[in-house]
Amino acid sequence: MADLWQRYQHYLYQDEALGFSLDISRMAFPDDFFARMESPIGRAFEAMTALESGAIANPDEGRMVGHYWLRAPELAPTPELRVEIEETLAKVKAFAAKVHSGEVATAAGGKFRNLLLVGIGGSALGPQLVADCLGRPDQPLALYFLDNTDPDGMARLFAQLSGQLDETLTVVTSKSGGTKETRNGMLAAQAAYQAAGLRFGPHAVAVTGADSELDRYAVNNGWLARFPMWDWVGGRTSVFSAVGLLPAALLGYDIDGMLAGARAMDAATRIPDVRRNPAALLALMWHHAGGGKGDKDMVVLPYRDRLGLFAKYLQQLVMESLGKELDLEGRKVNQGIVVYGNKGSTDQHAYIQQLREGANNFFAVFVETLDDGPADLEVEPGVTSGDYLLGFLLGTRSALWENGRESATITLNVLDAEALGKLIALFERAVGLYATLAGINAYHQPGVEAGKKAAQRVIALQGAVLEALRGAGRPLTAAEAAQAAGSPEEVETVYQVLRHLAANSGRGVVREGAVGPADERFGVS
Amino acid sequence: MADLWQRYQHYLYQDEALGFSLDISRMAFPDDFFARMESPIGRAFEAMTALESGAIANPDEGRMVGHYWLRAPELAPTPELRVEIEETLAKVKAFAAKVHSGEVATAAGGKFRNLLLVGIGGSALGPQLVADCLGRPDQPLALYFLDNTDPDGMARLFAQLSGQLDETLTVVTSKSGGTKETRNGMLAAQAAYQAAGLRFGPHAVAVTGADSELDRYAVNNGWLARFPMWDWVGGRTSVFSAVGLLPAALLGYDIDGMLAGARAMDAATRIPDVRRNPAALLALMWHHAGGGKGDKDMVVLPYRDRLGLFAKYLQQLVMESLGKELDLEGRKVNQGIVVYGNKGSTDQHAYIQQLREGANNFFAVFVETLDDGPADLEVEPGVTSGDYLLGFLLGTRSALWENGRESATITLNVLDAEALGKLIALFERAVGLYATLAGINAYHQPGVEAGKKAAQRVIALQGAVLEALRGAGRPLTAAEAAQAAGSPEEVETVYQVLRHLAANSGRGVVREGAVGPADERFGVS
Repeated sequence: MADLWQRYQHYLYQDEALGFSLDISRMAFPDDFFARMESPIGRAFEAMTALESGAIANPDEGRMVGHYWLRAPELAPTPELRVEIEETLAKVKAFAAKVHSGEVATAAGGKFRNLLLVGIGGSALGPQLVADCLGRPDQPLALYFLDNTDPDGMARLFAQLSGQLDETLTVVTSKSGGTKETRNGMLAAQAAYQAAGLRFGPHAVAVTGADSELDRYAVNNGWLARFPMWDWVGGRTSVFSAVGLLPAALLGYDIDGMLAGARAMDAATRIPDVRRNPAALLALMWHHAGGGKGDKDMVVLPYRDRLGLFAKYLQQLVMESLGKELDLEGRKVNQGIVVYGNKGSTDQHAYIQQLREGANNFFAVFVETLDDGPADLEVEPGVTSGDYLLGFLLGTRSALWENGRESATITLNVLDAEALGKLIALFERAVGLYATLAGINAYHQPGVEAGKKAAQRVIALQGAVLEALRGAGRPLTAAEAAQAAGSPEEVETVYQVLRHLAANSGRGVVREGAVGPADERFGVS
Repeated sequence: MADLWQRYQHYLYQDEALGFSLDISRMAFPDDFFARMESPIGRAFEAMTALESGAIANPDEGRMVGHYWLRAPELAPTPELRVEIEETLAKVKAFAAKVHSGEVATAAGGKFRNLLLVGIGGSALGPQLVADCLGRPDQPLALYFLDNTDPDGMARLFAQLSGQLDETLTVVTSKSGGTKETRNGMLAAQAAYQAAGLRFGPHAVAVTGADSELDRYAVNNGWLARFPMWDWVGGRTSVFSAVGLLPAALLGYDIDGMLAGARAMDAATRIPDVRRNPAALLALMWHHAGGGKGDKDMVVLPYRDRLGLFAKYLQQLVMESLGKELDLEGRKVNQGIVVYGNKGSTDQHAYIQQLREGANNFFAVFVETLDDGPADLEVEPGVTSGDYLLGFLLGTRSALWENGRESATITLNVLDAEALGKLIALFERAVGLYATLAGINAYHQPGVEAGKKAAQRVIALQGAVLEALRGAGRPLTAAEAAQAAGSPEEVETVYQVLRHLAANSGRGVVREGAVGPADERFGVS
């Protein structure tokens, strides 16, 4: 215990001005670990400096990586970029102010009271995290999301918004402007407005790359406003661009605070000295825990309801950035760190059993915020709910350590817009530094195309199969339909497509015959 | 491709009456796998039969395991248990009907319009899953949760409910009746009602074990109603007891459908023939994927918004059941299967990159439901959002398979109360069968006590330290305070407790002195 207290003090990163500390004493790295890692982390600092200066840090896509400039525009490599960032921020604030004042008004001249965000992945998780963390019952707009291409989910959402679409502002966010889920959600929203007798354009705002498919659609259909996305900001690090700031400003959150928090954490994590740099410490802990190959999962456990989506946000940031097949030299490495978690102490009742007793295949990252808020009831003499929350965190941390399970603990004095900005910036920088340690490109996502392309082949195949079915004049088995559609090798996909169409009345396909993929026959109705 | 189509057909489990199929063709088990596993799975069937007949299937705690009886009371081992189950179900329905009719009314004589559930773990995740899956905008009560001991989260919730508590029914659920998070939530709710000038009892309902701390509290404080929990139903399998059925009935969902679905899946998964038993197939796939030791994570990806909490539900069911240090013989095995996931196609934009390219340390379980609902817009000629949803599922499945990543796919014709019952029952049975394959007790959770006890020590220490601080008459360092409190070895915990108290004004502790755990001094204000 005395040793642990020494270890705790020795390795504690504490920054009073930042209101932040990081405890790595329950990570079981050996004494010579930092000395051994000095040279690799030195290279990571250099790579980060180059990246921040505008180097092509995403070589595969030939792009700069500029999310750090979003909160420090003076660092942007050209005056043009700086101006773009600053003007976009000003435009975001001005638009939100007009919505709040009623200058941007509903068709009836009233104030908007709902905000519907249509987006997926990087265009959804950031705004979702921010709203979950900073949301208040008295915020100027109530928030709704459409982050999938599930028609049932869309129908439920529009049933919820029934009778309120006239007072609902819809923001459609797609960096590329071509994401199908978002396109489909946008079309569903447009149809819902039209069904309610409303024009969509005067309720719609786009956040997208200049001259993208979505950008042109917005221009041609008289949308209220358009905000830019840039190719030097990745979706998973876009929360400090208009993607995250526009919704946050509309919802009345302190976006200057978010930016200031991120900026302050950036300054703290730019220091090229491991022991004085919490992002470097974090990256090195990941490297230690997973043997540099991501052999252990990262379980993220914030002990605060408002951070209930933080693990999900990090799941995207970390897994999409670090989950790579090839390193920068083109060697096969199959890197990555699995991230999961929800919140404490709730998750203690779900899977601490396994964390303590099951396979030792993870390390935990606890997040705590010291301030319990204004009104914390005594639940026993001198003891509050917040005391229990801390007690459960400390109890779990120690129960894990006793059983040889590692953890790091992040402590923030308060949880506000600034603190959220700090947290996000901390992990963004840790991901970037770790990527250099692992020798990979953290800023591309070459593995997502295969599934999208395969999906497009399914959609194309569906059209061909339907045509074949109509031409056949009799019900066909999947094998016959695949043959007739000119894709005999795709028979399984044909079966699955036909089974889906037949399960939905109104799609013009009926199923008959014996049960079983080989025997079922599909005809047109 | 032709081989895959053969493999797909050969191994497809399809039950037309159940509206359910399970595809295991993309799990790469060898041809002799089922033959090799015949004897182990035979023993699992036998153990399950004994369990369902009332054997002490949870030996450590000397308890029967009876969640299957909840949807088939005629299987309960005694007439008394059968009657208890049936009477509780009748009581749940009758109470919900009275709330809906207004016979159980607010103080003003009106109808309740909100439901607040206070519970954690097994007492929260089931109702949360059910409400997320079956919720409709027009349901009779709007739903709120309190599932933690975070005072900030509680304050936000009660701000949301401000002015509406008079029309809010609060259900407090704790099987043991002694869970601190739930106790704290209950006290916070009680205080909020009182602050609104309302008596808590006439708004409160308990679901708990007979004569538990909570049960007695409810009796002594004139609560509206009490519903039983039994020691033969574990928290993580309690959704078909009053824990899950009471909220579902109050929210107007089809609880008979939920029970019927679970009952039908139970019947299908009781068949002692692997190839005709989808739960056995699933358990064997887990065994295959993880080498019988849980070496691979299970990524659960339902392609449907309404199932967005299913992976989180399974995280508890699977990890708490299977994450065990010792097998039934007392040998150290450190078993378990990590579960994570949210929903498709959304998650494709978060971490399919890593699944396809990163470490091959997982298998996926896709869940699809064929029925897209009544209104599915065409987004391209002849193509709907639902077609894209299926396309993304099939595309991802094939992109993973191409790269040697395994998956199984569950298909349900529709997603309704029955289907949800089926899904839950399927995984409950798979967990039970897998536990026998792995030789472990799936029904206890010996690993959760250590953290809870350590938390109680923190709470006790806080009291001693505060007393020492008051007695000292001068500010103390953490080391001095720990010494004065008689726990010099607990100095780190003392530091963390004092740091937390000092960060919250009104707790009577102030911090001064130089920064750093050894130098900071804490005094009473």
